[in-house]
Amino acid sequence: MAPGAVLVPAAEVGARLAGLQTTLADRGLDAAILVQNADLYYYSGTVQRSYLYVPAAGEATLFVRKLVERARRESPLAAPLGTVVELASPRDLPRLVAERYGAPPRRAGLELDVLPVNDFRRLEKLFPETAFEDVGRDIVRQRAVKSPWEVDRIRAAAAVTLGVCELVPGILREGLTEAEFAGRVEAEARRLGHEGYIRMRAFNQEMFYGQVLTGASGWASSYLDTPLAGTGLSASIAQGASFKPIRRGEQVVFDFVTTSQGYIADFTRIFVVGELPNELRRAYDAAVRIEAAVVAAARPGVTCRALYETALAAAEAEGLGEYFMGHGEGRVRFVGHGVGLELDELPVLTASDLELAKGMVFALEPKFVLPGLGAIGIEDTWLVTGAGLELLTPAPNHVREVA
Amino acid sequence: MAPGAVLVPAAEVGARLAGLQTTLADRGLDAAILVQNADLYYYSGTVQRSYLYVPAAGEATLFVRKLVERARRESPLAAPLGTVVELASPRDLPRLVAERYGAPPRRAGLELDVLPVNDFRRLEKLFPETAFEDVGRDIVRQRAVKSPWEVDRIRAAAAVTLGVCELVPGILREGLTEAEFAGRVEAEARRLGHEGYIRMRAFNQEMFYGQVLTGASGWASSYLDTPLAGTGLSASIAQGASFKPIRRGEQVVFDFVTTSQGYIADFTRIFVVGELPNELRRAYDAAVRIEAAVVAAARPGVTCRALYETALAAAEAEGLGEYFMGHGEGRVRFVGHGVGLELDELPVLTASDLELAKGMVFALEPKFVLPGLGAIGIEDTWLVTGAGLELLTPAPNHVREVA
Repeated sequence: MAPGAVLVPAAEVGARLAGLQTTLADRGLDAAILVQNADLYYYSGTVQRSYLYVPAAGEATLFVRKLVERARRESPLAAPLGTVVELASPRDLPRLVAERYGAPPRRAGLELDVLPVNDFRRLEKLFPETAFEDVGRDIVRQRAVKSPWEVDRIRAAAAVTLGVCELVPGILREGLTEAEFAGRVEAEARRLGHEGYIRMRAFNQEMFYGQVLTGASGWASSYLDTPLAGTGLSASIAQGASFKPIRRGEQVVFDFVTTSQGYIADFTRIFVVGELPNELRRAYDAAVRIEAAVVAAARPGVTCRALYETALAAAEAEGLGEYFMGHGEGRVRFVGHGVGLELDELPVLTASDLELAKGMVFALEPKFVLPGLGAIGIEDTWLVTGAGLELLTPAPNHVREVA
Repeated sequence: MAPGAVLVPAAEVGARLAGLQTTLADRGLDAAILVQNADLYYYSGTVQRSYLYVPAAGEATLFVRKLVERARRESPLAAPLGTVVELASPRDLPRLVAERYGAPPRRAGLELDVLPVNDFRRLEKLFPETAFEDVGRDIVRQRAVKSPWEVDRIRAAAAVTLGVCELVPGILREGLTEAEFAGRVEAEARRLGHEGYIRMRAFNQEMFYGQVLTGASGWASSYLDTPLAGTGLSASIAQGASFKPIRRGEQVVFDFVTTSQGYIADFTRIFVVGELPNELRRAYDAAVRIEAAVVAAARPGVTCRALYETALAAAEAEGLGEYFMGHGEGRVRFVGHGVGLELDELPVLTASDLELAKGMVFALEPKFVLPGLGAIGIEDTWLVTGAGLELLTPAPNHVREVA
């Protein structure tokens, strides 16, 4: 563990399990059986090869194939909230469930949004009398609202981001390739406590520190559900920094994702060696104004759709609607996304009826992709409070010029 | 694209599709519909949000939601091997398939080993008359045997690894935290062309550059299917470098995974500030001898089981069987694994009847985890040739001592 890193407290896990149990009871499900890493961490405080059995009422049990000893050290389920049980083989699961809970569940929830079909079929064979339903959506909705403890973890991730951001002017210089520049910045992030791996929930979505893109590189978009992607180094990874050298007067898009104690902060600032051309500066200033317009409109009860439309209208009013959040078929239909244990959480600031609620945390990222010029914009991570939004990534929002 | 990076040639994609089509015909499947990133890259040369429709006979079609323009630039399916077709919505897929292929498939293959249940059910709704079967296993078997072109890509990944390895003595010094040391090494890798993201096929498996572990950190294992994992910085990511400072006389396990043009090389060497204690040196020398024993026994037609048993017997003969490939419940039951577009490919050198075949590429990693002392061992990436094995990661195999 890093200095300052803490295990998930029992009170956190207890409240989260209670929230899930309410959902299970409401839906008439007898239990949920959870297996995905981010969900396991959320509901048990440990990431093991395991099945977390959550009954609609009563104590949860973490059945662990590998490593039960680590699970016992890390999870409050070992005590006082439930039990951690060694699982020699998945074949033993039905018997162990029956021993602890009297019978297999008649109806049980699974994470069908992420669980591969073959793994699902294995569970169907183990529990032939159980009807399985999806609880992935319920979990994602619950996880969208952060506790104060979780917000503190996101603040810690943001502190790493802001620490790295301060070091960028000392690293950036003309002639470095995007990849070399990115590597040096990432090394500072590692030193400051970035955990490296960035979890995403959606199938096939992949992320590596975010995107460092300069000049026309920001024009390239990809399969990713992001407004910018970059060319990357090959058609295989197809995103991220390239071997293009950084040139004077080009925007350096520092779109950086930090993981700390599992929690994510997302952030974008613009740097430049020399000065930005007017067209890019104008677009950047527009992005800052769009961010301010969305922030002014955001508070509990406002729909994601209203905020997305606010952003779209502001981009149109700036005369830049055509380039907002990507160009052509690369354009994405959102202006922000929830962050937490995964980069692609709720709320998504898109044409959805989901309402903001106190405790939600999202990245707001108005960006433009301009023909021939590449990408530019801003991104911050925000907490929904009772009154509006609180900035979790407090850093100056001007373009940083490096001589 | 990086200098030297190339698009996948039409001849490669053509041969791969032909191989898959033979399997489809043998199994009586009318088609396969593929969606997973690594498989898309393998069979189409591009990674887009798309459905790759491969009929048992005739031309394949890549139906692309995002980005068709990038797909046309990158994929030989655009011409001359098949067609790249824009897909406005997945709902259009059945109609477009019927237009091109006359009818929906009666029986079709899907990657059921990786496809989430909800995505599968969406495909079932789109093709209500189609019976779907798993072709994930067939794909994994086909991908296990590399073409000479693919082997060259793995050599390129290995070249990055070896370049970084040469720089390690200049970076390593007493007092650096594992994380700071790892970050500096990773920065060099980025500069030399490491693409960052490392794909794994198995659900929930996650990887970030491999593992840099020193001294007792190597004692920590995890949910991962690896002999060593490390503590990481928190219980959430639960693997990798920690904030433990590197001390004189401790082994520095440089277990490093490089991705280049999508292809992976896996490699482990040991460094030390000062000198290794005798017990660790003895274990390291044993690992080198075990590697040699397995290499001597390996050739086309030999089963993975025979090689695994060779390694186990050699470890027993060294008097270190108890600590081989992990300790206690953290122990893994293999001594090597295929590498290619994913880190967890076939062949797995475990108690399996799979026979080595010419063109297979695997990482062989005899390692020990010693109580109180941590992990030590060696790892190289090897190509199966007609006569035996060829080393793809040629680097000195002695412990490198740094003053």
